[in-house]
Amino acid sequence: MNNTFGTHITVTLFGESHGPELGCVVDGLRPGLRVDEDEIARRLAQRRPAGPLSTARVEPDPFRVVSGVWKGRTTGTPLCILIPNLESKSEDYVNLSNVPRPGHADYTGFVKYRGFADPRGGGHFSGRLTAALVAAGAIFLTALRGRGVTLGTHIARCAGVADRPFETLPDDLKALECAAFPVLDPRRGEAMQASILEAAQAGDSVGGVLETAVTGLPAGLGAPWFDTVEGLLSHALFSIPAVKGVEFGDGFALAERRGSQANDPFRMEAGGVVTETNHNGGVNGGITNGMPLIFRTVIKPTPSIAIAQRTVDLSTNTNTEITVRGRHDPCIVPRARAIQDAVTAFVLLDLLEASY
Amino acid sequence: MNNTFGTHITVTLFGESHGPELGCVVDGLRPGLRVDEDEIARRLAQRRPAGPLSTARVEPDPFRVVSGVWKGRTTGTPLCILIPNLESKSEDYVNLSNVPRPGHADYTGFVKYRGFADPRGGGHFSGRLTAALVAAGAIFLTALRGRGVTLGTHIARCAGVADRPFETLPDDLKALECAAFPVLDPRRGEAMQASILEAAQAGDSVGGVLETAVTGLPAGLGAPWFDTVEGLLSHALFSIPAVKGVEFGDGFALAERRGSQANDPFRMEAGGVVTETNHNGGVNGGITNGMPLIFRTVIKPTPSIAIAQRTVDLSTNTNTEITVRGRHDPCIVPRARAIQDAVTAFVLLDLLEASY
Amino acid sequence: MNNTFGTHITVTLFGESHGPELGCVVDGLRPGLRVDEDEIARRLAQRRPAGPLSTARVEPDPFRVVSGVWKGRTTGTPLCILIPNLESKSEDYVNLSNVPRPGHADYTGFVKYRGFADPRGGGHFSGRLTAALVAAGAIFLTALRGRGVTLGTHIARCAGVADRPFETLPDDLKALECAAFPVLDPRRGEAMQASILEAAQAGDSVGGVLETAVTGLPAGLGAPWFDTVEGLLSHALFSIPAVKGVEFGDGFALAERRGSQANDPFRMEAGGVVTETNHNGGVNGGITNGMPLIFRTVIKPTPSIAIAQRTVDLSTNTNTEITVRGRHDPCIVPRARAIQDAVTAFVLLDLLEASY
Amino acid sequence: MNNTFGTHITVTLFGESHGPELGCVVDGLRPGLRVDEDEIARRLAQRRPAGPLSTARVEPDPFRVVSGVWKGRTTGTPLCILIPNLESKSEDYVNLSNVPRPGHADYTGFVKYRGFADPRGGGHFSGRLTAALVAAGAIFLTALRGRGVTLGTHIARCAGVADRPFETLPDDLKALECAAFPVLDPRRGEAMQASILEAAQAGDSVGGVLETAVTGLPAGLGAPWFDTVEGLLSHALFSIPAVKGVEFGDGFALAERRGSQANDPFRMEAGGVVTETNHNGGVNGGITNGMPLIFRTVIKPTPSIAIAQRTVDLSTNTNTEITVRGRHDPCIVPRARAIQDAVTAFVLLDLLEASY
Repeated sequence: MNNTFGTHITVTLFGESHGPELGCVVDGLRPGLRVDEDEIARRLAQRRPAGPLSTARVEPDPFRVVSGVWKGRTTGTPLCILIPNLESKSEDYVNLSNVPRPGHADYTGFVKYRGFADPRGGGHFSGRLTAALVAAGAIFLTALRGRGVTLGTHIARCAGVADRPFETLPDDLKALECAAFPVLDPRRGEAMQASILEAAQAGDSVGGVLETAVTGLPAGLGAPWFDTVEGLLSHALFSIPAVKGVEFGDGFALAERRGSQANDPFRMEAGGVVTETNHNGGVNGGITNGMPLIFRTVIKPTPSIAIAQRTVDLSTNTNTEITVRGRHDPCIVPRARAIQDAVTAFVLLDLLEASY
Repeated sequence: MNNTFGTHITVTLFGESHGPELGCVVDGLRPGLRVDEDEIARRLAQRRPAGPLSTARVEPDPFRVVSGVWKGRTTGTPLCILIPNLESKSEDYVNLSNVPRPGHADYTGFVKYRGFADPRGGGHFSGRLTAALVAAGAIFLTALRGRGVTLGTHIARCAGVADRPFETLPDDLKALECAAFPVLDPRRGEAMQASILEAAQAGDSVGGVLETAVTGLPAGLGAPWFDTVEGLLSHALFSIPAVKGVEFGDGFALAERRGSQANDPFRMEAGGVVTETNHNGGVNGGITNGMPLIFRTVIKPTPSIAIAQRTVDLSTNTNTEITVRGRHDPCIVPRARAIQDAVTAFVLLDLLEASY
Repeated sequence: MNNTFGTHITVTLFGESHGPELGCVVDGLRPGLRVDEDEIARRLAQRRPAGPLSTARVEPDPFRVVSGVWKGRTTGTPLCILIPNLESKSEDYVNLSNVPRPGHADYTGFVKYRGFADPRGGGHFSGRLTAALVAAGAIFLTALRGRGVTLGTHIARCAGVADRPFETLPDDLKALECAAFPVLDPRRGEAMQASILEAAQAGDSVGGVLETAVTGLPAGLGAPWFDTVEGLLSHALFSIPAVKGVEFGDGFALAERRGSQANDPFRMEAGGVVTETNHNGGVNGGITNGMPLIFRTVIKPTPSIAIAQRTVDLSTNTNTEITVRGRHDPCIVPRARAIQDAVTAFVLLDLLEASY
Repeated sequence: MNNTFGTHITVTLFGESHGPELGCVVDGLRPGLRVDEDEIARRLAQRRPAGPLSTARVEPDPFRVVSGVWKGRTTGTPLCILIPNLESKSEDYVNLSNVPRPGHADYTGFVKYRGFADPRGGGHFSGRLTAALVAAGAIFLTALRGRGVTLGTHIARCAGVADRPFETLPDDLKALECAAFPVLDPRRGEAMQASILEAAQAGDSVGGVLETAVTGLPAGLGAPWFDTVEGLLSHALFSIPAVKGVEFGDGFALAERRGSQANDPFRMEAGGVVTETNHNGGVNGGITNGMPLIFRTVIKPTPSIAIAQRTVDLSTNTNTEITVRGRHDPCIVPRARAIQDAVTAFVLLDLLEASY
C-alpha cells in the first residue's frame, strides 16, 4: 500500500510541503503506552535544521496529537499527529514546476502523478514530511525503551571524514542521544563540519554514511522468507530521502572475505548464547540472533545545489539549465539521523509485536 | 505476512529441504500469460550446481505446475508449482541439529520456531527453496519480456576478482542469458573460478557482489513513501540467502561525492527525457525515471566450511566445536544470479501491474 | 489492519467522539479525480440529524481537506479529511464510564482497550466517526458516477412499516438522491416517521432494513475465493453501527425456494448478456454479472433508550441499573443511509480499480 | 488479495476441479500445534457426499500434508495440504463450456478470466476446492479446542422444515460433532431429508439456513472499524458456495424490535460479566462480549437442476436452453456445514492470535 508501512503497527503518512497540515496516523499500538510530548519535541529538534550547516527555513514543528491518546497514554485506537506548515515561501519553488531539478523527484513525480501533483516545494515528496515520521518515531522509541531496546545512529562518514566505529554500545548510544551533531568522536565531528562548510561555500553539497546500532533485541525476530529483518528494515530505510544503499554487519566488505572470516562463532556466556564476533550484524538467516543489530545507510549528496545544471523544460520539451535558488542544506546527513532512528523503531516495534 | 511477497501479484513459498515436496503459489497473474515450461527448466538449470565449484548434490528439479494453467496460458487463478525432493541424504545433517553452525540460521531458527522446526538440511531455511522462487521467476521474466522489460545479473566481484562493468546493455544482457558462468568478461570469469577453487581447497568459501541491470522500464513506477522501488527490491533481495547489502546506482560510493557529481542532468533525446549519467541507478525519489535500473547485492561467503569452528551445544548449553560435513558450495554467487533475476522480476512485474 | 479498509484504495479512520478532530486518510486514489466539496457537504447533510426524529446535537460538520488535493483534483497522494468536534457536552456521558450501556460497545471496548480508551461519548466507537466515512464516500461516489455507476439506498422496512420495492432503477435512484427521508413511496415514509415517533414517545427506539441498488457495474468484478463481492461488501457494511445482517438478492428468502425459482435465466439483449430475473442480486459465484447489485442490511434499534435497564458497575463488579440520558436518536436508520452509500462506494471503486 | 484469507494466519487456496491436485497453504500457525490427520479425515468425511441426498461422485480425499509439520506438530513454517483429483469425468462438463448454467459462475468466470479459465467442472470455482478449506479447518478447529473454544453448525431450516434452536450449548455442540446429518432434533432431520428427496425427484433442488454457535471465546476480540467480528466472519462465510446472506444474533428479526427488546442487559455471574439475553449474538460494537457467538447463513438452492433452463451460447451470442446433466446434489446444505465450521475457525483463530 502506497503510504502505509508496517504489519501489526502501521504508519500512514499524508501531506504536502506547502499544504495547511501534514501528519500521520499510527494504528495498532497497544493501549496504555506512554505518549511523551517532550520526547516528541526533542526528536523533532534533532531533525530540525540548525547552525551554519542547514537551510535557514525555521521549522518550529508545533505538532498536535488529535486522536488515540487519553491522559498521556495510547488508547489502542488510531493516533493521528498533525503538523501545520507555518511558514511557506512557495514562490521560491513555483517557477520551477516545469523544469525538473536533477537528482530530485520532480520529473518522476510529474510522470507518476500525471501533472496533478501539488508542485510547491516538492509537494508530497518533500523532506518536510519526515517531521511526521520523526514525531511518530518518538512514540515508538519510547515503547522500545520500555521493552529494553535502545538504538542510536551516528555519522560514520561524511564529506571525506570518518567517525570512529561503535565501541562500548551502551555508552556510545547514550552519548549520541545528547549529541547535537551525531558523532562518537567530537573532534572528527568538527572536521566533518568544516569539510561540509567547504562544499557549501563552493555552492555544492555532500553525502555520507549513517550507522545505527540496536541493543536489547531478543533472538528470534524476523523470518527467512520474505520478511527478513534486513528486508523489512531496508524497505523502510529507503524511504529516508537520499538513501541509496543499506548494508548489515560487515556489509559489502564481506565480498572480500572468506567464510572462516565472516562466520561468527557461538559461545555460551552468562547462561545465554552469544557470538564472539558480529560480522553478520546481529542477523542470521533473516532473524535476529540476540547480538547488537548493526547497519549502515548511504545518503547521497543533497541534490539541491547552487551550481548551474543541465535539465529540460517539460512544457516545451527543450533542453535548458537550472540553478536551484532558495535555502538548502549542503548536507542532510546530520538531520537524517533522526529519521533513521524513527523508521528503525517502526520496524523493530512491529517485529516485537509480531512475535508469538 | 511471513512467506508471501508482493502486492498485486503474490508469491507464497512453502516446503522444507527434506520434505516430500516444496513449492510456491503465485496469485494475481493476469489470465492469458504464456507459461513456458522450457524457460522454467532453463532458469532452474542456471540455479543448479554444476562443475567443480558446486556441491555434488544432484538436483534435476522435475517441477510440476498443478494449477492455474490451461493450454499453456495462465488462467488468472492461483498457479501452484511443486518440486519434489528426490534425493535427500538427511543423515548428513541430523546429528547437527543441537549444534548450530556459525553463520547459518540454525540457532535463530531454533529460537524462532521453539525447537519444533524440521531440522533436516536447514528445513524451511534451506537454499533448496530458492528452486521454487526461480521456477516462479521464469514465468515473471517471460511476462516482463512481453512488456519490453529485459534484465540480467553478472558477478561484479568474487574471490578478489572483478568483472568489467556493464557497457552496452542490450548486448551485455543477451550475453548473460547464455553464459554458464555469469560474467561479462570470460577471462575474468576464469580467474574468478580459479580463485574460488583455491579457497575450496583450503576448506574455505568466498563471497561476492552481484550486479543487475534492467532495461525497458517506464518512468513512474514506485512511490515516495514507503514503497520506493529501492525499498521494494531490497525487501525481496534480502530473501536471497547470504545477501547482506543492497545498493542502487553508485550506491555507497555516493558518500564520497559532491552533489554536482551525483546528480544526473536531464536531456531531451528522441522526444523523450533521458539523463546524461546514471549515478542514481534509474531511480529518483523512489520512482523509476526511465533509465536503466542498476543495483548490486553483496553475497557473504557460504557459511558451510570444512574448517573447525567454535559453537555451542543447545542440548547441554556448553561450548563445543563443529566441522561441517557433507557437500557444500565454496561459493554460491554464480547460482544466486538466477535467484536475483527471479526476485527482481517479482517486484518489477508487480510494480507494472500496480501502475494505473 | 484495524482501522483501514480497502485493497487498492484504502480508507484509514481516526478520532474520538470528543477529541479535537476526527477524520480519515484516503490513499490510492488516481490523480485527477474531481473533489467536489459541495457534494461532500451534501452527503454530510444526509447523515446529519434533522427534525423530530433525531438527537438535538447540532453537527455542522465543517470539514477540511488538508492534503491530496490541488486545484480541486486529487493529486494521487493521500487525501486527509479533518472534521473538528465543535460542540461536545461530554458531561452527559462521563459519569457512565464505569457502567456499560446494554447494546452498546462500552463493555467490549473496556475489555479490548483495557480501560485506556477515551470514555467520552463512546470514544472511537462513536457514530460521530461515520461523518468521516460519509465525507470520504462523497469523493468515491463522484468517481463512480464518472465511471457510469450509480447507487442509492432506501429504507425498505422501519418501525413496522414497509416501503415499496425498487421498480425502475434509474428513476428510483434519482428520486432517492433528493429525498430528505429516503423512501420510494413518500406516504409510507410518513407512516414510518409516525411509527418512529410513537416509539420515541415511549422512551424506546426502533430498527429497520436498508436496501441498496447499484446500476452500471460491469460484469467480472470480485473473485470466487475469498474476495467475493458479497464478502467484501459485507465486511465493510458491518462497520455501519448497528448492522447485524446482510443479504444479497433474495437473501434469506432463498432458503424456502427451489433451484428452479432461484436461478436467473440468461438472455441476449441489445448484444449483451442479461438475466431475466435477479434473485441473485447481480452476483454469481462471488462476481458481478452486470445486472443491478441489490442488497439489504438490518439495522438494530438504537441501543440508547430512556427506559431503565439492568447492567453492572465495572468499578465495583456489582449489578446496577442505568437510564441513558442525553440526546439520542430513536431511530438511526434514515441517517445510516448515507453511511451505507459511502461504504458501498469504497468497496465498488476499489473493485473497479482492481480489475485488469 | 484474491485467494488468500486471514491477517496473522493465512489460508491460500489453489487448484481446479479437474486439475491433477488442489490444495492450500496455511501460514502463520504457531510452532508446536498438533496436526491430527484423523481429525482432518473426519472433517473431510462430514463434507463428503453420502447417501441418497448427494451426488454419486466418490471423493475419498486422500490428502497429503507436504510441509510445515514435523513429528505431528506444526513447525511454524507454511503448511501445504495437497488433495489429488482421483476421479474426474470431465466429459460430463466440457460441452457446456460455451453455455453458462443459470445460477452458476460460468458466465461471470468467463468474463473475469477472459475465456482463459479451465472450463472443466467449474475449474477454480468448483465446490471441490472446499475440500482443501475443510482439511485446513480441521487444524484450526483442533487449535481452537486447545484454547477452550468449541463450535458447531446445524441446519436451522431446509426444504421447508425447521430444526429446533440451540438450547444447552455444550451438549448441543457435542451432539452435532457425531451427527451424520447435522440437526439437533433427529426427527425433524428425517422430515428434512424426505422433503429434500421430494425436490430431487422433481429434478429440482432446495436451499436452507445454517446456524453456528461458538462457546469459549473471550470478550474483546474484533474491532469497531473495519475488522468487526461480524465483518470478518461474513467476509469468509460468503466464500462458501451458495451463501447469499449472513446474520448475527437475532439478525433480520431485529428490524421489527424496539431497543428495549433488542438490548442485552448485563449481570455479574460467577465473578464475570454476562448478558441475560443474547439478541446480539455475542457481539457488541463489532467486538465479542464473552457470550456465545451465534450466526446464520442462507444457502441458496443448488443451481444444478435437471430441469431445462433458458440461457445463452457465448460462442454465437444467441439464446438457447440447457439441461444440466451429470451427478448433482439436490441440496448442499448438509455438506456445507463442514465448510462453515472450517471458515469460522479460520477467522476465530486469527482473531485470537491478533489479541495482544
